[in-house]
Amino acid sequence: MAFLFVLPTWPVDVWTAAMKKVAPDLDVRVWPDGMGNVDDIEYCAAWLPPPGVVKSLPNLKVIMSLGAGVDAILKDPTLPDNIPIVRVNDPDLTGRMTEYIVLHVLMHHRQQRRIDENQKKKVWDSFPTHAAKDLSVGIMGMGVMGTDSALRLRDLGFRVAGWSRGRKEIPGVESFAGEAEFDAFLARTDVLVSLLPATPETDGIINRATIRKLSRKGPFGAPIIINAGRGRQQVADDILAALDAGELHAATLDVFVPEPLPPESPLWTHPRVTVTPHCAADSDPETICAYVAENIRRHRRGERLDNLVDRARGY
Amino acid sequence: MAFLFVLPTWPVDVWTAAMKKVAPDLDVRVWPDGMGNVDDIEYCAAWLPPPGVVKSLPNLKVIMSLGAGVDAILKDPTLPDNIPIVRVNDPDLTGRMTEYIVLHVLMHHRQQRRIDENQKKKVWDSFPTHAAKDLSVGIMGMGVMGTDSALRLRDLGFRVAGWSRGRKEIPGVESFAGEAEFDAFLARTDVLVSLLPATPETDGIINRATIRKLSRKGPFGAPIIINAGRGRQQVADDILAALDAGELHAATLDVFVPEPLPPESPLWTHPRVTVTPHCAADSDPETICAYVAENIRRHRRGERLDNLVDRARGY
Repeated sequence: MAFLFVLPTWPVDVWTAAMKKVAPDLDVRVWPDGMGNVDDIEYCAAWLPPPGVVKSLPNLKVIMSLGAGVDAILKDPTLPDNIPIVRVNDPDLTGRMTEYIVLHVLMHHRQQRRIDENQKKKVWDSFPTHAAKDLSVGIMGMGVMGTDSALRLRDLGFRVAGWSRGRKEIPGVESFAGEAEFDAFLARTDVLVSLLPATPETDGIINRATIRKLSRKGPFGAPIIINAGRGRQQVADDILAALDAGELHAATLDVFVPEPLPPESPLWTHPRVTVTPHCAADSDPETICAYVAENIRRHRRGERLDNLVDRARGY
Repeated sequence: MAFLFVLPTWPVDVWTAAMKKVAPDLDVRVWPDGMGNVDDIEYCAAWLPPPGVVKSLPNLKVIMSLGAGVDAILKDPTLPDNIPIVRVNDPDLTGRMTEYIVLHVLMHHRQQRRIDENQKKKVWDSFPTHAAKDLSVGIMGMGVMGTDSALRLRDLGFRVAGWSRGRKEIPGVESFAGEAEFDAFLARTDVLVSLLPATPETDGIINRATIRKLSRKGPFGAPIIINAGRGRQQVADDILAALDAGELHAATLDVFVPEPLPPESPLWTHPRVTVTPHCAADSDPETICAYVAENIRRHRRGERLDNLVDRARGY
């Protein structure tokens, strides 16, 4: 039995070293030049695998995504139908996403960019501020990560709601469910956070029409967007146009199409856009390898795989 | 019975309007030109009152500080001995301080300044990151505000400790007490937060010797300071020298001597210093006035005053 890393855009040496440390007995192979006899490979862990790689492994039993998203794996037209896909969803990854969401909600809430500008000009300005209870945060995507972010924001005093396929029962967090309640969710939301998976239904969901449905009753008079889901969910031109028309107050974007964000993108230099390099929830190699190794052990003992992906749903 | 505002550095109109709204029956007077007959004045609310003002009110029964700090009131050499002093300590003020501490710990933890610099240069850089559990936050001053900040940071996964006069029992938060445990507290702390009151014992506590005792085992190799207590607690020259010597990684300062921070201060332009204009826990006029009016009602009914200051202790 052998295990394969397929990591075209990541430093694979770091990952093989981490895996050797947490699972020294595992026979670790590396795509494309260290695959050995492909017949041995029963497990593979991938991030953005090129189309065709999975199909080239005749005895593969499980594909593991090294991030919470599996869209790159699912869009491979040659992907065999019968191989289970598992996605990483460990507490470390969840905690990092929550940090990102809390940080960027607070940066907007506390007007840190305005304070930064004042510091550059040596201006001591005591402008009026508002309390957390005056800001309504709405999270699209209430899985493990969305729920954890919602709880921490709730504890800081924000008015928090979540929008998800099915209704959620989380104390102190309002729940909106399905297409029918989307507009009501937007209408009460000053800060829109996306933690949605990339599926055909969520493609382009952050567009001009969505932005226009958001609340204008918040302390900034126009809404704010934070996208830590997937780049395909935002229509960049709509965001820029809405910012310039005063329909949007600010945006913090961690995900883009394409990535890395090309230097010619106007998002880099817009004064009301914060660009972060898809770092909201970085995968820590050792933590993730331990999770992968444990999932392999479970599968070999015939136990249920953790975080199995529903292909029809897309996550 | 009349009530007096003494607010030499604040927009007093905003405060009188807020008080009229929450306590329409209160006879509100304003120092220095709207005091009327000073014999009527039984209650006063002040922020940075000039020396001698309190003594000039013959029938004053209670002095209320409009912030959590009372150092400006206590340092008036003409302050009568027998008048109780009350400080504001309401949930709104506490929540705002917690937001500030959580925001600035996260900004350092997530290296947001590095990401900001990269955005300016249009650089997409995926540098190695660390988990919250890898960062030890130490809070000096574990009153209502310090405790609330500690709980929220603990819930985000940071290793949190508090240092206070007496030992505290807070689940998941390590407690260090008194002078004897100060060095041990510093030795385990990567991010030092001050929420201390201004007292003779805390003057200059953030100095070069203190900085040298902080942990160097954290993810940045040198410690970080966040001061939201009082400017007198920090020795600005020591902070600047420690930054330039590599003994300190970064500093976020909300408080200074003097305030406003003068344009010639090198703190404004140091690349590793974040300057915020004493805004960590802004007093919201309506919320604070409601608190003051309630304290007046309690006193007139003969009930115990909330948050009475111990003059010997200084807070």
